Amino acid sequence: MNTPEEFNEYRSRMNEKILGQDNKVIKRIFNLDTNAYASGKVDVQTKEMIGLACSMVLRCDDCVRYHLGKCHELGMSREQVFEVFSIATLIGGTIVIPHLRRAAEYWDNLDNQ
Amino acid sequence: MNTPEEFNEYRSRMNEKILGQDNKVIKRIFNLDTNAYASGKVDVQTKEMIGLACSMVLRCDDCVRYHLGKCHELGMSREQVFEVFSIATLIGGTIVIPHLRRAAEYWDNLDNQ
Amino acid sequence: MNTPEEFNEYRSRMNEKILGQDNKVIKRIFNLDTNAYASGKVDVQTKEMIGLACSMVLRCDDCVRYHLGKCHELGMSREQVFEVFSIATLIGGTIVIPHLRRAAEYWDNLDNQ
Amino acid sequence: MNTPEEFNEYRSRMNEKILGQDNKVIKRIFNLDTNAYASGKVDVQTKEMIGLACSMVLRCDDCVRYHLGKCHELGMSREQVFEVFSIATLIGGTIVIPHLRRAAEYWDNLDNQ
Amino acid sequence: MNTPEEFNEYRSRMNEKILGQDNKVIKRIFNLDTNAYASGKVDVQTKEMIGLACSMVLRCDDCVRYHLGKCHELGMSREQVFEVFSIATLIGGTIVIPHLRRAAEYWDNLDNQ
Amino acid sequence: MNTPEEFNEYRSRMNEKILGQDNKVIKRIFNLDTNAYASGKVDVQTKEMIGLACSMVLRCDDCVRYHLGKCHELGMSREQVFEVFSIATLIGGTIVIPHLRRAAEYWDNLDNQ
Repeated sequence: MNTPEEFNEYRSRMNEKILGQDNKVIKRIFNLDTNAYASGKVDVQTKEMIGLACSMVLRCDDCVRYHLGKCHELGMSREQVFEVFSIATLIGGTIVIPHLRRAAEYWDNLDNQ
Repeated sequence: MNTPEEFNEYRSRMNEKILGQDNKVIKRIFNLDTNAYASGKVDVQTKEMIGLACSMVLRCDDCVRYHLGKCHELGMSREQVFEVFSIATLIGGTIVIPHLRRAAEYWDNLDNQ
Repeated sequence: MNTPEEFNEYRSRMNEKILGQDNKVIKRIFNLDTNAYASGKVDVQTKEMIGLACSMVLRCDDCVRYHLGKCHELGMSREQVFEVFSIATLIGGTIVIPHLRRAAEYWDNLDNQ
Repeated sequence: MNTPEEFNEYRSRMNEKILGQDNKVIKRIFNLDTNAYASGKVDVQTKEMIGLACSMVLRCDDCVRYHLGKCHELGMSREQVFEVFSIATLIGGTIVIPHLRRAAEYWDNLDNQ
Repeated sequence: MNTPEEFNEYRSRMNEKILGQDNKVIKRIFNLDTNAYASGKVDVQTKEMIGLACSMVLRCDDCVRYHLGKCHELGMSREQVFEVFSIATLIGGTIVIPHLRRAAEYWDNLDNQ
Repeated sequence: MNTPEEFNEYRSRMNEKILGQDNKVIKRIFNLDTNAYASGKVDVQTKEMIGLACSMVLRCDDCVRYHLGKCHELGMSREQVFEVFSIATLIGGTIVIPHLRRAAEYWDNLDNQ
């Protein structure tokens, strides 16, 4: 799951299956996910950094991968991403470090695509 | 670990090793696990749905798999299981979605056994 | 905050203030909360027990109070509620016990209204 | 603890007591906390929004209060703060709502200072 | 709840009420709690430090108070307790700091009894 | 990742990459990690048991593996390690059990090196 291609393929395939079930509450949560990160009084780049940091402190590798992909698309630099990592690791503690390792590896994989 | 056979085999093998260590506290916790889900003033099906939802909000894939196996044995429908998924995703937030993907995949694997 | 009156008054007052802000994402999350617990393939009483158990394992006193209020309205018995408590305490561990204490106290307060 | 004055007074008094104990690891963590939120490749306002969102998804009322105080000092608008709230509530789920209530109340208290 | 007397009184009163409900699973969890911290291959003082650190990283103030009370009874020094605090704060991150403040205050209250 | 060799190799390789980024906050957190577990008023063995138990209740497999490696190096017995496991499983609840399975397997792998 650590290459962007594998991650995105599995994510898309399973999202389709889940939405195909036609559960109204789940469908709306998925829709909200799109709305919440759209530009508003807070810009898209900041929202993606917020999403990335929250994913790290909650220690969700797949969520980290998703937001890293978005940050990469938006042209954020490695230095910026590592500053977000540093705040998340400080807030969440050393328990975040194993997720930081996988995040650093995934960022390289995004660069090497 | 995503097929029911692999999951159950590893689970049984490691439980046996753990119980073989003869630690009294651990053995009693394992016993309690059997008692708590037995029929009482709350029926078994409801208890398994509770176990499933708690496993999702606490984001434990193996616990989700275990309770999905039980729900499947008890004859619950896909629609019912997805309603439990929807409540858990709402309570636990979008951070639960990667676990929802793996849960949906595992439910299919249970169907295809 | 431990009497149902105080809890409900604060909850209603602050919900009104939050919804008054007119943030679309927050408003939709609040709406979903109503939909998710409505009767469907899983009945209302089971959904409230799921909500109660998830609130306990996630250790949110206010969420526990809210679902206890709903369970009380639906006519659930003290024995049923304590069975839900027992599963949640087993899943979530002894760290849940302080919340169990406050939950038991609140259930009495609901009875004594 | 819900007025900014009470919150800040207790926080300062206890921080002083803790640092007076002269535990090197704790002192360094407190220092890091200052460094991590300083301006760098990511600006101060963004870092405070990250701190606020992480505090909400981790459901720490005091951490939320602290970052709300900083956001207020930096001149952020109510609309911006509510957009951060909305992302945090979506990521963290409805379990975050009781903290959202207290956060909304505290923001008003900051305005009314 | 911040004086040892208030804390212990509420804890005892509510435990009695909970055990009076006669739910077998809950009663056994309460019994296990006594067994697990008894002297074994790991001594009582180490077990209480483990209980204290786990309570801090899981951010349960009442659990922290309980184990601080036990550590105080066992004659542990303020320096030792602060070393446990420092490990817990490092593992759990700055999100633990508000609990560290209340823990430091409670330790003083134990000293001033 | 379940053999000590694979785990240690990945850990060292990624730590090097992370530290190579030269983010001051992250570097200091890594340094603190070394200081916090050094001998002080609390001895090294106790600190490693604390680290192990906290890693289990926070359900971080890699953190558990790291501290199990340290406990093994320090000559702790299987009985001692299982007593730490038992406290962590009681505090953290049955949600910890899947991590207990992987921890028990890893301890055997350490023995079989």
